[in-house]
Amino acid sequence: MTGVLHIVGVGPGDPELMTLRAARLLAACPVVAHFRKRGAPGQARRIAGSHLRAAAEELAFDYPFTTEREPADPVYAGEMAGFYDRCAGVIAGHLAAGRDVALLCEGDPFLYGSAMYLHERLAGTHPVEVTPGITGMSGAWSRAGVPMVRGEEVLAVLPATMTQEDLTARLRLAQAAVIMKLGRNLPKVRAALAAAGRLDRAVYVARATMAGEEIRPLRDMAEGPAPYFALILVPSR
Amino acid sequence: MTGVLHIVGVGPGDPELMTLRAARLLAACPVVAHFRKRGAPGQARRIAGSHLRAAAEELAFDYPFTTEREPADPVYAGEMAGFYDRCAGVIAGHLAAGRDVALLCEGDPFLYGSAMYLHERLAGTHPVEVTPGITGMSGAWSRAGVPMVRGEEVLAVLPATMTQEDLTARLRLAQAAVIMKLGRNLPKVRAALAAAGRLDRAVYVARATMAGEEIRPLRDMAEGPAPYFALILVPSR
Repeated sequence: MTGVLHIVGVGPGDPELMTLRAARLLAACPVVAHFRKRGAPGQARRIAGSHLRAAAEELAFDYPFTTEREPADPVYAGEMAGFYDRCAGVIAGHLAAGRDVALLCEGDPFLYGSAMYLHERLAGTHPVEVTPGITGMSGAWSRAGVPMVRGEEVLAVLPATMTQEDLTARLRLAQAAVIMKLGRNLPKVRAALAAAGRLDRAVYVARATMAGEEIRPLRDMAEGPAPYFALILVPSR
Repeated sequence: MTGVLHIVGVGPGDPELMTLRAARLLAACPVVAHFRKRGAPGQARRIAGSHLRAAAEELAFDYPFTTEREPADPVYAGEMAGFYDRCAGVIAGHLAAGRDVALLCEGDPFLYGSAMYLHERLAGTHPVEVTPGITGMSGAWSRAGVPMVRGEEVLAVLPATMTQEDLTARLRLAQAAVIMKLGRNLPKVRAALAAAGRLDRAVYVARATMAGEEIRPLRDMAEGPAPYFALILVPSR
């Protein structure tokens, strides 16, 4: 009897925003895996917190890089592929031994989640089930009190790493947008929002639903780097 | 002491995809409100199911229209505004009497949710808190096993009611897309996907996470009307 890999979204940060299903699976799985930056406790693990079985075996997969290399660096892709291969191998070993594994994932697994790289390596050969999670952006707009889209409106989810021209073009074709992965891209994002005529309604949100949460109109933000996971909400009204 | 309006996302359909927070609020609120089509039981109410307090007072708000009028009809907007005004008035009465009210909402309240129309009427004058929910699209891509976006990719959320040209233009500017509110728009959506070169990877999903769930490649779908809440997933790969 092979085990099942449960890829479990644990939501945006507040542990109470986990689903009932996630809580049930974490309480039942004998093996719990998660990714983390080297030397950091792991955000998904922190969110899952007290829901894990006391006797669960924990697998902490340390990313090979933090900020030493950029994704565009050719060494990065090769090293990351090898890293995900090794993680998939460790999980496959547990599944083959009949143990269910819960792989924790911040937010929703299939929206920019690292768990996608293990899904593509294991789903063809092993039983894999995915439990959706509250996305970081849902956590942000709920806390900010910002309704995003209604009726026939379009929502664009845009990484802040795009060029200013590409951002502007996509903002112009959507009534509402979320701009993710802000980091050092704030000046460029601000310029794109201004060019698309959306600067006045943009809201900056960092660490939504967590300690240190920050929500304010973008126009009140100083320039300078933002946290990598901060985002900008551009509601349709 | 005025009561608090809790706008509570109850997720895509499977009651186990409610959050721990939603379950706690539903067990605590003395008044529970929800929208429904006249004569139908109400999908949000069904999802919330056994989590409500036995003694809770229930407010069922029947939409004035089902399919008799289209949103473009000028009578529609006026009638709907009056309807939401009346709903807000009923809720405001409970809040003024010191009773907390939970307003149930399928999926996530701020993503195409009717609760937004009560938020805009009450949030300026009453304490309102929003509990995010798992979106219908997250439920769909999790059940379909379809990872959507990674890294620097763009996701577009598009209503199927747009013109074919508008759909095609937006599909071309995004690596991934979700096309919502399919209903009678399937032939048009299929043509737009073909024009944008995405037809082969499109996946049709109806009633995700619920009884009668249907998931299949769009190319295997016959023409003809789909359920209104069916959607198309277009993953980036």
